[in-house]
Amino acid sequence: MAVGLHDFPAIPEIKGVRIGVAEAGIKKPNKKDLVIFELCEGASVAGVFTQNAFCAAPVRICQQHLQTSDIRYLLINTGNANAGTGKPGLENATRTCEALAEQVKVPVSSILPFSTGVIGEPLPVDKILAGIPQAIAKFSTDDWQAAGTGIMTTDTLPKGSVRQFEFDGVTYTVAGISKGAGMIRPNMATMLGYVFSDIAMDQAVLQQMLKQATNKSFNRITVDSDTSTNDSCIAVATGKAQNPKVTAIDSPLAKAFYAAFEEVMLELAHAIVRDGEGATKFVTVEVKGAKLAADATKIAFEIAHSPLVKTALFASDPNWGRILAVVGRAGAEHLDVDKVDLSINGVEIASQGGLSPRYSEALGQEAMAPEEIHICVDLNLGEQQDVVWTTDFSHEYVTINADYRT
Amino acid sequence: MAVGLHDFPAIPEIKGVRIGVAEAGIKKPNKKDLVIFELCEGASVAGVFTQNAFCAAPVRICQQHLQTSDIRYLLINTGNANAGTGKPGLENATRTCEALAEQVKVPVSSILPFSTGVIGEPLPVDKILAGIPQAIAKFSTDDWQAAGTGIMTTDTLPKGSVRQFEFDGVTYTVAGISKGAGMIRPNMATMLGYVFSDIAMDQAVLQQMLKQATNKSFNRITVDSDTSTNDSCIAVATGKAQNPKVTAIDSPLAKAFYAAFEEVMLELAHAIVRDGEGATKFVTVEVKGAKLAADATKIAFEIAHSPLVKTALFASDPNWGRILAVVGRAGAEHLDVDKVDLSINGVEIASQGGLSPRYSEALGQEAMAPEEIHICVDLNLGEQQDVVWTTDFSHEYVTINADYRT
Repeated sequence: MAVGLHDFPAIPEIKGVRIGVAEAGIKKPNKKDLVIFELCEGASVAGVFTQNAFCAAPVRICQQHLQTSDIRYLLINTGNANAGTGKPGLENATRTCEALAEQVKVPVSSILPFSTGVIGEPLPVDKILAGIPQAIAKFSTDDWQAAGTGIMTTDTLPKGSVRQFEFDGVTYTVAGISKGAGMIRPNMATMLGYVFSDIAMDQAVLQQMLKQATNKSFNRITVDSDTSTNDSCIAVATGKAQNPKVTAIDSPLAKAFYAAFEEVMLELAHAIVRDGEGATKFVTVEVKGAKLAADATKIAFEIAHSPLVKTALFASDPNWGRILAVVGRAGAEHLDVDKVDLSINGVEIASQGGLSPRYSEALGQEAMAPEEIHICVDLNLGEQQDVVWTTDFSHEYVTINADYRT
Repeated sequence: MAVGLHDFPAIPEIKGVRIGVAEAGIKKPNKKDLVIFELCEGASVAGVFTQNAFCAAPVRICQQHLQTSDIRYLLINTGNANAGTGKPGLENATRTCEALAEQVKVPVSSILPFSTGVIGEPLPVDKILAGIPQAIAKFSTDDWQAAGTGIMTTDTLPKGSVRQFEFDGVTYTVAGISKGAGMIRPNMATMLGYVFSDIAMDQAVLQQMLKQATNKSFNRITVDSDTSTNDSCIAVATGKAQNPKVTAIDSPLAKAFYAAFEEVMLELAHAIVRDGEGATKFVTVEVKGAKLAADATKIAFEIAHSPLVKTALFASDPNWGRILAVVGRAGAEHLDVDKVDLSINGVEIASQGGLSPRYSEALGQEAMAPEEIHICVDLNLGEQQDVVWTTDFSHEYVTINADYRT
């Protein structure tokens, strides 16, 4: 049921990155469920992670390893989140890192582990250990789509994005994959996202860019308001493009890179929404004219989370009163209900807090019919704004989440 | 699909209260949709209302009239919320009050208007004006069930509650009705609730009791996290029991009354959850052992609002990891994930943040099977606690809210 999600793009080789994918039987037999990324020596690696206090074991290990070591491998399994698993969960994640470290001859701390899937069940370590040599044996430079497939949970399609840009006669590539379809209201990072480039860049600059782009992309999407325990987003700069290392975020090359990087991040974030559980609509919620940026953000997310708004979107029902009701209850610091304007897909519905004289039910139904919906709320109080992206709430969402473990 | 909702109780006459119910054709033909309560002279009337900034026109008028006048009539229509209707909405509500005032010969400000139903459509004033004399013609002292029916929207059953208590040889009655099945996350009051007693009580004391009981009942329920624009809860003390007027909240009679009053309020609030849109479960969420009461409240509501928890409840799936994930993201000020215990219907599921050694999937499934579910989270950090009540999230919820206006 993905909404406007394009086919997986053709991603060229990114020098310094190799990909190995295995069917380890974690999720189901004969399904890709184990992905290893190998990074060249000297690659810069940045990461942002879930803010959920119940963060999963692999997230805790990632945070440690990123602080202490050069990272050489990303080890990702789907089918099991290794979250809510206490100390045995940490031990299990460490055992999988140790097994890979031994086979590829790097320190354990050079490996970042990631898990996604069911929460609260023990990580099937033996299956992962058996899958690691299979994945290593398949290392290649072009298996991007297999990697995108190998990290899926309830996703219906693999998600990838690629941009290239030229600078001083050199062509740079930025490409990535993401996954996530439910338990999506990232707070610092999405379920799982990985973006790679051949650019040479200082880790600190890459980390700063990752944080900035995350706040404009993964941290502005929501499917069901639930922040996952495993959200992780990783950016890698291999340096194989041989440019003089980027050390300042405002250099011309840094800016050219950032533009492409943010586009990739945004496309990957949008892909998660487009493939959101049970999604039949891709919904942009824009709130502008706010006195405070925080008010715009708060109202936009509250609209995006409202079950009543989301079920009306599913029904293509221009039940605009539900949207105004959310604006009213969102707890904005500054709000004058008699100044609020609302439009959907360009059709003016409410003006000055009440029904627009130009509105008709027929216009409203026309506005709500497309798969892509743009809700715009203008508070008419100031210059601040924000945008978030979300889905509708369908029968399919209930079905998927009522049956997830069966 | 109401969960454990008993039949409408037999409510005795409450001296000083008369009820008139009409079929005004606001909602659908031949449906009770207009209710008038007549109160005797000298009755004390207290009210609490929605905190939604987009509060409906009748709410604004109620707040004005309560401050300026003795209240003699409650005028309630279903089928149209008169919310998001701007200035014409205020004028329309006033016109209906004027029409009733003229017929019963009281000042307009002695009337409190209430509306519930679709938001954003003009109030059908002519239908209400035509219905008022019909309702007046039917004034009686025993039409409680018709009144409960006449305020329903998507409710499947009328909701009533009654308690009697004796004090100094006098029998006092406390009884009420409520409605509400969706857009339920009251903040100061439910959708609509009306509680009446024959006790003589100072308005200020009644108001204080109403606020206190609301915070333990209507302000602790949630169906779908959406705070309505029309939430209103009214308490009436007619004084016809002839007791010396209660003027202090801590007098023995006041305490005896409050106990019965809170029971009625709680039963009416629970009835709304039991009849929540698409409800198949009645869920009690208890959070205890918190260092701060606010943390207990926040976590309890976040669990009650989580679509992932609610769909798991619908499926009777002991997917306890989703509950812990909510505890982790709820933003509690004090939380030690390694201390959290979780039980469902008395079955210990998680202890110290991980799976309990005493837990088995079979026990979990048994715990989740009943219609009544008690989720208990113990943070093991302090003495504070809170309880909220909610429903699961079913296909029926989506159906009801996708089809509401059609």
